[in-house]
Amino acid sequence: MLTPKLDHLIKQLQILPSVGQKSAQRMALQLLSKKRQQGINLAAALDIAMKEIIECRHCHSFSDDEICPICRDSRRDSSLLCVVESAADVMAIEQSGAYRGRYFVLGGHLSPIDGINADDLHIDELIARIKNEAISELIIATGSTIEGQTTAFFIHDAVCNHVTKITRLAQGIPMGGELEYIDSITLHQALQNRGSL
Amino acid sequence: MLTPKLDHLIKQLQILPSVGQKSAQRMALQLLSKKRQQGINLAAALDIAMKEIIECRHCHSFSDDEICPICRDSRRDSSLLCVVESAADVMAIEQSGAYRGRYFVLGGHLSPIDGINADDLHIDELIARIKNEAISELIIATGSTIEGQTTAFFIHDAVCNHVTKITRLAQGIPMGGELEYIDSITLHQALQNRGSL
Repeated sequence: MLTPKLDHLIKQLQILPSVGQKSAQRMALQLLSKKRQQGINLAAALDIAMKEIIECRHCHSFSDDEICPICRDSRRDSSLLCVVESAADVMAIEQSGAYRGRYFVLGGHLSPIDGINADDLHIDELIARIKNEAISELIIATGSTIEGQTTAFFIHDAVCNHVTKITRLAQGIPMGGELEYIDSITLHQALQNRGSL
Repeated sequence: MLTPKLDHLIKQLQILPSVGQKSAQRMALQLLSKKRQQGINLAAALDIAMKEIIECRHCHSFSDDEICPICRDSRRDSSLLCVVESAADVMAIEQSGAYRGRYFVLGGHLSPIDGINADDLHIDELIARIKNEAISELIIATGSTIEGQTTAFFIHDAVCNHVTKITRLAQGIPMGGELEYIDSITLHQALQNRGSL
């Protein structure tokens, strides 16, 4: 028999990914007993983010303004374009620190079985962008799943006449990967694409 | 290079227990892409809970009103009083479904090494309550840590002249516990307190 506002908070916290009843309860009680002001600040940040963050008009990543900080940044190489499935992928690549070009977020991958066709993604807009801009290299960084590969081939076929260099991320064994635990398709790719030491 | 409101939300989410940079990022992106309205609802529930949940004047558990639902509930046995360290303990005991009496939340345990003495807990108030109410059994359900045990003995000594029956939770092997993984003090207790089958 919980007090209603606490009960409601515990239910609401469970919308967060991998937060169940027990974790939600622990979160709610810890905030209530020791971090009330921080809880209020979190509520405000959440409310503002949900209501005010929009999609960048240029790359479809998340942005506070019409054009996101990456698209606005004149120091980035605008002749490099990296196509990804989601804003989460943009964040992952940014955190690697290995890329200084621009991005384009498709908003998913092609998956006819789930009814996701080219019209549901920003593919037409991507093609238009490639035709209008002087892109020297298009990096198609969709996932290395069947759907991600299909999406990559689809985009390649649509734009291969408009951009000379189209690349995919290298496939191979991940850092810290123990050979015995790596699946055979990955090992096959890693062997085929082996480089000299 | 993240858009500032998203960056702020990711930092704020990390005040939640066991939420680090990666989980916070995943939470923020999932809410933004698929659960905006639920995110707004969570923000509202959090804000209301942090600002409006108070301590029950009677038992010091969390409550929406001056007196919490358990203290208000006339069907509960008011001759049974269970003393716990925190509101989280009240929730755990309620979820066991094995108790129909009242509670009293101390607000912690005695720990002279951390400077927590009887004055920092609601011990005087507990003693006053025991003296004024007709308590038939006092269950001291503080933790089975050194501090929890010390707190239990302290309370026992202070009130043993005012209540005839003072009990502690049984100690023994937990449900599903494999003997070989149980510490020797617990096994010692479980053997000493063994019951007939």
